Amino acid sequence: MDAAALWERYQNWLYYHPGLGFYLDISRIRFDDEFVTKMKPKFEKAFTDMKALEAGAIANPDENRMVGHYWLRNPELAPTAEIKAEIEQTIAEIETFVSQIHAGAIHPPQADKFTDIISIGIGGSALGPQFVSVALAPDLPPMNIHFIDNTDPEGIDRTLVPLKDNLSTTLVIVISKSGGTPEPRNGMIEVKKAYEKENLDFSAHAVAITGVGSNLDKQATQEGWLARFPMSDWIGGRTSELSVVGLLPAALQGIDIREMIAGAKEMDIATRKPELATNPAALLALSWYFTGDGRGLKDMVVLPYKDSLLLFSRYLQQLVMESLGKEKDLDGNTVYQGIAVYGNKGSTDQHAYVQQLREGVANFFLTFIEVLQDRQGVSSEIDPDMTAGDYLSGFLQGTRKALYDNHRDSITVTIPVVNPKSVGALIALYERSVSFYASLINVNAYHQPGVEAGKKAATVILDLQKKVLEVLREKSEPCSLQEIADLTGSSAEVEAIYKILRHLHANERGVVLAGDLGKPDSLEISLNK
Amino acid sequence: MDAAALWERYQNWLYYHPGLGFYLDISRIRFDDEFVTKMKPKFEKAFTDMKALEAGAIANPDENRMVGHYWLRNPELAPTAEIKAEIEQTIAEIETFVSQIHAGAIHPPQADKFTDIISIGIGGSALGPQFVSVALAPDLPPMNIHFIDNTDPEGIDRTLVPLKDNLSTTLVIVISKSGGTPEPRNGMIEVKKAYEKENLDFSAHAVAITGVGSNLDKQATQEGWLARFPMSDWIGGRTSELSVVGLLPAALQGIDIREMIAGAKEMDIATRKPELATNPAALLALSWYFTGDGRGLKDMVVLPYKDSLLLFSRYLQQLVMESLGKEKDLDGNTVYQGIAVYGNKGSTDQHAYVQQLREGVANFFLTFIEVLQDRQGVSSEIDPDMTAGDYLSGFLQGTRKALYDNHRDSITVTIPVVNPKSVGALIALYERSVSFYASLINVNAYHQPGVEAGKKAATVILDLQKKVLEVLREKSEPCSLQEIADLTGSSAEVEAIYKILRHLHANERGVVLAGDLGKPDSLEISLNK
Repeated sequence: MDAAALWERYQNWLYYHPGLGFYLDISRIRFDDEFVTKMKPKFEKAFTDMKALEAGAIANPDENRMVGHYWLRNPELAPTAEIKAEIEQTIAEIETFVSQIHAGAIHPPQADKFTDIISIGIGGSALGPQFVSVALAPDLPPMNIHFIDNTDPEGIDRTLVPLKDNLSTTLVIVISKSGGTPEPRNGMIEVKKAYEKENLDFSAHAVAITGVGSNLDKQATQEGWLARFPMSDWIGGRTSELSVVGLLPAALQGIDIREMIAGAKEMDIATRKPELATNPAALLALSWYFTGDGRGLKDMVVLPYKDSLLLFSRYLQQLVMESLGKEKDLDGNTVYQGIAVYGNKGSTDQHAYVQQLREGVANFFLTFIEVLQDRQGVSSEIDPDMTAGDYLSGFLQGTRKALYDNHRDSITVTIPVVNPKSVGALIALYERSVSFYASLINVNAYHQPGVEAGKKAATVILDLQKKVLEVLREKSEPCSLQEIADLTGSSAEVEAIYKILRHLHANERGVVLAGDLGKPDSLEISLNK
Repeated sequence: MDAAALWERYQNWLYYHPGLGFYLDISRIRFDDEFVTKMKPKFEKAFTDMKALEAGAIANPDENRMVGHYWLRNPELAPTAEIKAEIEQTIAEIETFVSQIHAGAIHPPQADKFTDIISIGIGGSALGPQFVSVALAPDLPPMNIHFIDNTDPEGIDRTLVPLKDNLSTTLVIVISKSGGTPEPRNGMIEVKKAYEKENLDFSAHAVAITGVGSNLDKQATQEGWLARFPMSDWIGGRTSELSVVGLLPAALQGIDIREMIAGAKEMDIATRKPELATNPAALLALSWYFTGDGRGLKDMVVLPYKDSLLLFSRYLQQLVMESLGKEKDLDGNTVYQGIAVYGNKGSTDQHAYVQQLREGVANFFLTFIEVLQDRQGVSSEIDPDMTAGDYLSGFLQGTRKALYDNHRDSITVTIPVVNPKSVGALIALYERSVSFYASLINVNAYHQPGVEAGKKAATVILDLQKKVLEVLREKSEPCSLQEIADLTGSSAEVEAIYKILRHLHANERGVVLAGDLGKPDSLEISLNK
């Protein structure tokens, strides 16, 4: 295609949203008109599915749940008056709570104001808040946020040790829908112990975001925590950023949450339009389908040319991969679907792996995210007529061209500036694109059955550890791995037991391993009692 | 394969290094003996290549360079006495400089001690130092490090604004081999301006790590910077972490660099052994080759179950993808090689995208990184006989099993603890594995020809911007995009010019766009003079 034809194609497919100052360019995805025609019926179905979803259909049949994250931006759409009221009331409660915290009307027992936040959560309860914090927190925020998003003891220490002198002015938010997910539960227990060690009243610093009536909710009530906010069952973890899960931490950091919601609402309106060519989420889904042949044959590499959007790809990993990565389609066929997502930021990643993107294995398509405004205020020049931001802009254009010339396709999303409105719009855009794409490939985007298998297998290991310790407490003589396996009634689990013991041994839990550590069968195991 | 056979396979292939307490398990990669036999001749060649490389052969013929990162850990191996002396002297200089900085013998003009570091660099000059900082910096380090690894004005502000009151006690390290790479050059210019704005003497805070005689070297000499450290031409960016590039920032943060080097040296010795079954780097390369059929058909997903290793996958993205992602092999055949790398950390990523890994598109293999020690000191129990670290350990085992049961293969690397020695060993392991794998697939691991194409295309854009501004300054009447394109002598570059103008317009550079922003051909462009 010569330059003139490409410019024609660019303009024909360019999507522009004046209210958001948002552009989407899919001209560098090499589909043709025939493909678009072929896809039209699939999109008709996708638009119908969307309508049913928003009207309150049971979109997640496995869990018998409605899927309501779109209602959060427009409570008028909610299928019942109760849900509408719940949404509006929660936002009002967040705003009241946050203004009281910022003003010091709610303050810790030993100080006038809270200065820091520890946010404890995992998955959707961490990825959205982390992305938004890096994207939107002011350079000098009213409160500094720290995340515990794992059950790694050293990682927890790494958060708590530097905060030690500030625990007395730190607010702790615990986010867990069921209250039973081990990572946030363990994080909460560890943090609570740290407060007790400093003779601080944990309850006076603690806030719960959880399902009404969950174990966490009960604990927070019983212990008289500072506040509780409800997590609704019609919001999935990976689409919860514009619920209390994302809004409370954002508001505490001084981020305008009404603007986030407004941006998402505008994008929702634009992506509700049942017409492929003028619906940006549909255009994205079309591009994904084309590049990967509707089977995820190409990875989605996401490169925002903006430091503050560094965590967008991590956020999208969950939203896209957990929604689309499915073994079965809705008719029960085995399909092994999904799209792998990775990326960090440009131009930084140009110096990391654009070598492979340009020349190597062609197993990906790119999404460039361009931000028009370089910074708040004016930039001085680096060279005549040239600022640091001009370089960044030139690098994006240059890389896009160099890749396209070597038959590597790309999408370009352009936003005017990284602010609450544009970030809200980006979140809404990708939520809807995932919904559409799921409909195109006929999978349930709202469940995650594959996560269960890992949880079950982990439970088996944890139960086995208990049995192993029981067996060793009974034994007076050292014994072999196989003997322990037999005595626990799990003769086939020698390897699992070896790994359990190796881990206990490394953590001063009394396990003694004699023999050659590289030859598991040679080991004689005993317990220091 | 039943449990007993799998346990047999596990033990047969288990690699253990007693000195490092390091384990490698490739039993969950489904190769068979026939495959191993078939690969033997390729490995013979790989071992021969390694020997020549270490002896000083020109391993990067494109740039006529020796490849000497292995000498850094054992200067005795260096091919000349000069190089040996250079390595030893640089380490001694680092140590002297750092101890003077820590003691306050070298201090900023207006304070007794330096408290912070701004490190300016990109690619290999950022990814290694960032990875090591997150992995190894003490919870309360002697100096806090901040990175500028891009030419994003807002990103630079985000580093400088919170540091404003501390600039007078901040040491600035500028890392750039040629001194000409725009990102670090722009970062340096912006930071220098920030110092001047605060009436601080930038030179008294600045340190250069650069090639002897580079533009940066000349500037540092002329302006009398605090110190200069040499970057040798036989060290590539992506293998520079154990050179001054990585060691100076590490030492300033209180990380034991001799231990990092010692760990790498021990791993180098282990991976120098010309025998597949007892060489961990060869075993890794074998596994990569098997999973992706020597053509990169599967992505490498790297999941350390440890918060502090979060950036290891980003570090590996460069090391693996820039080394292996090549269009041509050494014989000039078109091969489109490479292995895509991504991942963050477990168990966090279980709640993000293990759904897809377990059930979705099977286009990857996993590398689990297990760390035996949970934390410094003893953990209290969460449940009877169960700590937070036991959960983490159980989740790793459970996920590995759930994936394997669904035919998703994995490697498990086990280290005793995250410390300077084990991190040095990990770096050395992967450097060697990449060397071996490059030999197996017959590509040059030490050049990056594809990066040039993007740079050239970006230069065209930046030059075009200058011409566009010149044209607009001459014009008194508004004109169309096509007119501007014709007047710049780049009639075919309408789209590029449109994007340049859109960017300038958004940054108050005097560009006026009248018309419908969504319809580029409708625009009338002029310049406020």
